[in-house]
Amino acid sequence: MKKLALAACICATAFVGIASTAIAAESNPAIVHRQSIYKVAGGHMGSLKAILFLGGKGDALYHAEAIKGAFDHMGKAYPAGSDVGETKAKPEIWTNMSGFQEKGKAAYGATLGLIEAAKSGDKAAQVEAFKTLGGSCKACHKEFRKK
Amino acid sequence: MKKLALAACICATAFVGIASTAIAAESNPAIVHRQSIYKVAGGHMGSLKAILFLGGKGDALYHAEAIKGAFDHMGKAYPAGSDVGETKAKPEIWTNMSGFQEKGKAAYGATLGLIEAAKSGDKAAQVEAFKTLGGSCKACHKEFRKK
Repeated sequence: MKKLALAACICATAFVGIASTAIAAESNPAIVHRQSIYKVAGGHMGSLKAILFLGGKGDALYHAEAIKGAFDHMGKAYPAGSDVGETKAKPEIWTNMSGFQEKGKAAYGATLGLIEAAKSGDKAAQVEAFKTLGGSCKACHKEFRKK
Repeated sequence: MKKLALAACICATAFVGIASTAIAAESNPAIVHRQSIYKVAGGHMGSLKAILFLGGKGDALYHAEAIKGAFDHMGKAYPAGSDVGETKAKPEIWTNMSGFQEKGKAAYGATLGLIEAAKSGDKAAQVEAFKTLGGSCKACHKEFRKK
């Protein structure tokens, strides 16, 4: 479980790394807004890590629904021109937008699964759903995010 | 305005810095949960920066209300023992809890002001409320967070 939690964390901290850079100096609103949205999602993943893997207290359903809420507010996150600047977005996002959107849909679907698991209150189901979402983050990063 | 936005950013990125460290290795659920909640707030501040200062598109009211939502889910964020670990929380938080809580109430109040400003749709009012909230972050960091 530790290893799995770690995987999810890497996903969360990756968001953080990007966001901190972007918010510090980037002025392209699309880049700053999308990275901040990812930061929100990463924050909720971190909170869920505390609740599901570290024995912390918290409202897992709130965090799961908030991740969906963040994704729901992504807007047009990758407009033309937002490939240049303080962003780790690979050119592949624009040259293979359908493949990128597919990965996004997988992450969104995993978020819906996490919400259902949180509603059930079943701890094992929530851990499994958290792993699935964390994996979907990693899968997208691997293909569409610069190291 | 640029300078003010920057101030708010420093506040947001500060959250990020703490959170990334914490999520990477910290195992105290209270520390990880509270830092993740701050990361959520920082992400929404970053999104608001894109909307209010960089001409980006987005739902300012959603972000303002989400900051309140994050604070509402802080829970018992600074229990005994959570002063040790990967945290920049100063001992003063525990030795001067009433002073710390006062700063927290100021930030919460500023968040409510941001929500009202977002509801009004008045851009100048939102910028002003954003500055006030950013300032409340900085004021708390200055007194209760290690450099």
